[in-house]
Amino acid sequence: MTREELVAQIAKKKSFLCVGLDVDLNKIPEHLLKEEDPIFAFNKAIIDATAPYCVAYKPNLAFYEAFGVKGIQAFEKTVSYLKENYPEQFVIADAKRGDIGNTSKMYARTFFGEYNVDALTVAPYMGEDSVTPFLDGYDGKWVILLALTSNKGSFDFQLTEDENGERLFEKVIKKSRQWGNDENMMYVVGATRGEMFKDIRKVAPNSFLLVPGVGAQGGSLEEVCKYGMIKDCGLLVNSSRGIIYASNGTDFAEIAGQKAKELQAEMEALLQS
Amino acid sequence: MTREELVAQIAKKKSFLCVGLDVDLNKIPEHLLKEEDPIFAFNKAIIDATAPYCVAYKPNLAFYEAFGVKGIQAFEKTVSYLKENYPEQFVIADAKRGDIGNTSKMYARTFFGEYNVDALTVAPYMGEDSVTPFLDGYDGKWVILLALTSNKGSFDFQLTEDENGERLFEKVIKKSRQWGNDENMMYVVGATRGEMFKDIRKVAPNSFLLVPGVGAQGGSLEEVCKYGMIKDCGLLVNSSRGIIYASNGTDFAEIAGQKAKELQAEMEALLQS
Repeated sequence: MTREELVAQIAKKKSFLCVGLDVDLNKIPEHLLKEEDPIFAFNKAIIDATAPYCVAYKPNLAFYEAFGVKGIQAFEKTVSYLKENYPEQFVIADAKRGDIGNTSKMYARTFFGEYNVDALTVAPYMGEDSVTPFLDGYDGKWVILLALTSNKGSFDFQLTEDENGERLFEKVIKKSRQWGNDENMMYVVGATRGEMFKDIRKVAPNSFLLVPGVGAQGGSLEEVCKYGMIKDCGLLVNSSRGIIYASNGTDFAEIAGQKAKELQAEMEALLQS
Repeated sequence: MTREELVAQIAKKKSFLCVGLDVDLNKIPEHLLKEEDPIFAFNKAIIDATAPYCVAYKPNLAFYEAFGVKGIQAFEKTVSYLKENYPEQFVIADAKRGDIGNTSKMYARTFFGEYNVDALTVAPYMGEDSVTPFLDGYDGKWVILLALTSNKGSFDFQLTEDENGERLFEKVIKKSRQWGNDENMMYVVGATRGEMFKDIRKVAPNSFLLVPGVGAQGGSLEEVCKYGMIKDCGLLVNSSRGIIYASNGTDFAEIAGQKAKELQAEMEALLQS
C-alpha cells in the first residue's frame, strides 16, 4: 500500500487507529475455545466489529508462534481474511525481525512474499544490511523500524547519547533515512512520552510513525497528536488490549467495536483541530 | 543445560563447534526434494554425520518460517530429533527475538516451554524488560544476546561511543550482566574482527560467547581463540554454510561430516595450546 492510499483511508475514515491483534487464549471469551480455530474466530469477530473505525491491523507474531503450527495457521488465515474482505486495511506484522543480509532476505520473502502483509516491524541493532533486504524489490511494502519504544527498557540504550549529544534513537532514524524514504519506512515511537515527539519530528519531519502505548500502557493520544501529527497525519496509533479485551463475555466483539468507535471519535476531533 | 554440562561436552569432544542449520531448499541436494519433508531429511542426515564433532546446533528460524507451517513443523521435528537422539547437544534457536515484557514472555514460553531449546538469541535494543522474561523461571535455559555482530551493518550502531567513550556493544554487555549471569547469558560476537575479542573480554571476562562469521563470512578461528578463549573455553564457534553446503551431491552428509571433523581437529589443537 502506498502512502497516498494510506493517507486517503485516514481521511475517509477520519481515523488513524491501528488495532493490535495480540490474541491470548487465556484472555479470550470462553465460549470461543470450543471453536475449531479459536484465535481466528476471535480475530474475525474483532475485525468485523472494528473495521469501520480503523485503518490498520497489527497482529504480533509472538502471540501466534506461541501456539506452534496452529498459531501460524491462525495468523495466515487472519491476514488472508483481511486481504480478501478489507483490502483497504494496512496490515502490519509486528515481528521485530532483523538479521544478517541473507537471513533478513528470507524473512522479507516470508512476510512480504508469502504472507503479503503491508509492513513489518524491524529491529535496528544490526544496521543497514539487516534492514535493506526488506526494502529492495518490495514496492508498496514498508519497514517499520524500532526507534523509541514504549517500554521501560527503552531507557537502557535508546536514549544513550554519543559524543556529540545525539541519542541512539535519533541516530537510528537519521541513518536509516539513507536506506529508505518516507514512502517505505516508518518508525515505532512509543506514546508513553508525548513530548519526545517534538524531538522525533526534528529528525523525521515527514515520516509516518507507528505509535504503541496508548491505553493499557498509559500514553496520551492528545499529547501524541500535539507533538507528532503532521499535514497528512503521519501517525498510526495502536491500541491492543484496550480494544480487544474490553469485554470477555459473548459481547466481546460489540464492546471492542464500541471502544474502537470511541477512539475514532477522539481521533476525528484531533484531525480537525 | 548448565554451563558445567556444556563445558564437559566441550572437553569430551575436544570441540566447541556449533553447526548452523540454515536450510535453504534452493541449496540442498536435489534428490532430497522428493522426500515428504526435505528440510527435516536434510537436517537429520547432517546431524547424524556431524554430531561426533560438535557440541551445539543452531537452526535459524528465518529459514524455517520461510516455508510457513511446513517449515515450522520441520523446525519442531529437528529439535525433537536432537533432544531424543543427541540429548548432550546444546540447541540454540537463532531467532533474534525481543519485545515488550508481556510479548517477550510469550516468546519465552514458545521457545523454552514448547520447543524446549536450550538457548535463544535475543536482540537488545528494547532493553531490560524485553530480555528478562527469557531468564525468569527458566533454569538451565540461556539468553544469547546480540552484542557485536559479524555483518557490515554492525558498524552502524554497535560501535557508537557514548560521551564517556563506551561503545554500544560494551554498554549492552555491561548492563545485561546485571540482568543475567554467566550461567544463563551468553553474547553473540562476530568472528570477523578477532582483535575485538580483547575488548569483549574486558567487559565479559567469564561469559560464553557465540561466534558466527567463521567460514563463509571470513573470520579466523585462530584469532578468535587467541583473544577470546578462556579457562573453560568460553566459546561456541558457529559454522553454517561452510559445513552444510560443502557438497550438494548425494554425498552431502558425508562431506559435511568431513568438514565438521576438520574444524574439530583445528579446535582440538587450539584447546590444547
